[in-house]
Amino acid sequence: MAQILPQALLDAIEEFGQLPGVGARTSERYAYYLLRHNAKTARQLASAIDSLQDGVQVCPKTFALINPGEDVSPLYTDADRDQQTVCIVEEPLDIVALERTGQFRGTYHVLGGVISPIDGVGPEQLHIPELLERLKNDKVSEVIIATNASVEGESTALFIQRQITDAGIDTQISRLARGIPVGVDLEYADQITLTHALEGRRKL
Amino acid sequence: MAQILPQALLDAIEEFGQLPGVGARTSERYAYYLLRHNAKTARQLASAIDSLQDGVQVCPKTFALINPGEDVSPLYTDADRDQQTVCIVEEPLDIVALERTGQFRGTYHVLGGVISPIDGVGPEQLHIPELLERLKNDKVSEVIIATNASVEGESTALFIQRQITDAGIDTQISRLARGIPVGVDLEYADQITLTHALEGRRKL
Repeated sequence: MAQILPQALLDAIEEFGQLPGVGARTSERYAYYLLRHNAKTARQLASAIDSLQDGVQVCPKTFALINPGEDVSPLYTDADRDQQTVCIVEEPLDIVALERTGQFRGTYHVLGGVISPIDGVGPEQLHIPELLERLKNDKVSEVIIATNASVEGESTALFIQRQITDAGIDTQISRLARGIPVGVDLEYADQITLTHALEGRRKL
Repeated sequence: MAQILPQALLDAIEEFGQLPGVGARTSERYAYYLLRHNAKTARQLASAIDSLQDGVQVCPKTFALINPGEDVSPLYTDADRDQQTVCIVEEPLDIVALERTGQFRGTYHVLGGVISPIDGVGPEQLHIPELLERLKNDKVSEVIIATNASVEGESTALFIQRQITDAGIDTQISRLARGIPVGVDLEYADQITLTHALEGRRKL
C-alpha cells in the first residue's frame, strides 16, 4: 500500500503520541497544526523542548526546580519567607498551585513522588532523609503535609509523620484540610469527601 | 515575587500552550513529563517538530501531502488506483480516514479548506480551479464530494457541484451518505441526522 502521509509528518505524529494522554487523533491534530501554522511556532516549540533538560536544575535543599546557576531555590532564600515553616509536596508543580493562593509564606520540600509499592516506589526513593535533616538544621516549627488525597498520598503522609516523630523532632505537623470544594453541591459530593467534611467540621 | 519555576520550563509550558486545545494544565503536564522522562524522548520530539515544515511538500496535482523529492502523490500515481474516480476532501488528514476503510480505490483532491465567509475563506482560496482542470484532463467519470457534514462543508459541496455543471464537465457527482452512525441508538440520534437517515432510506 502506498504511504498516505509524508514520513516527516508521521514522525511528528508518533513523537507527539508519547506525551501523556495524547492519542492518535490528538497527535495528528498537533502535528498538522504545526505544519499549517507559521514556521516560527514550530521552531520555537522545538527549541523550548530541546532546552528543557539542560535549562532546569533541582534545588539541593528543597528539591524544587531552579534555573541553572542558582544554588538554592529563591522560594527558600527569599527573606520574606519563613524557613521555620515547611510545606511538603509530591511534585514541583504542586508548588505552583499553592503559590497561586498567595496565602503561604513558608518554604517547600518536594518529595519527588509518593510511596507506591505497585509502581515500585519505596520511601528510599523519596527525599525523606533530606527532609528530616532539614527539619533539624533549620529548627522547623511547623510542617504541613500537602501530599495528594489519594491512597498513596495518605500513606506517604502517615509514613512521614511517623519518621518525624521517631527521629524525635519537635515540630507541629498538620495535613491539608479535606472537605467539600467551593462550588460543589452537597448532593454531588462523594461519600468519603462528605465523611471528611463531617469529621473536620469547624466551630462557628 | 520570586519566580516559582525555572525559565526553561516556563518557556516550554508557554510554547505547548500554543497547540490547539491545550490549556495551562495540559501544557504544564506535557512540559513536566518531558522534563522527567529520559532526555531522548524530548530530543526526538524536538527534532521531529523541527523537521516538520521542511519534510512535507504539497502534491501539485492532488494537493495531498507528499515527501520531498516526490513529484506527485503516490495515491495518484499508483497503478492500482482509478484516476477517473476523484474523491474531494477538505484537508489532507481526511485522506487518512478514508484510506482506513480500505474501500476506496480512486484518487483524491484536497481543497485545502471550505468556503467560510466568517473566517474570510472564499472559493478562490481553495483548489477548485485545479480540480476543474483535472476533471477535464483526466476525463474523470465519477466525483465523490466528501466535505464535512457542517454548514460550510455543505455549501462548499453545493458550490463545487455547480462549478462542475457550469463548466460543462460530464461526470457523475455524489456526496457521502448521511445517516445514523454504527453503534448509535435511534433515541440518541439528533433530529437532523434522523431526517437525513429517513430521506436517504434504502430499499431492501
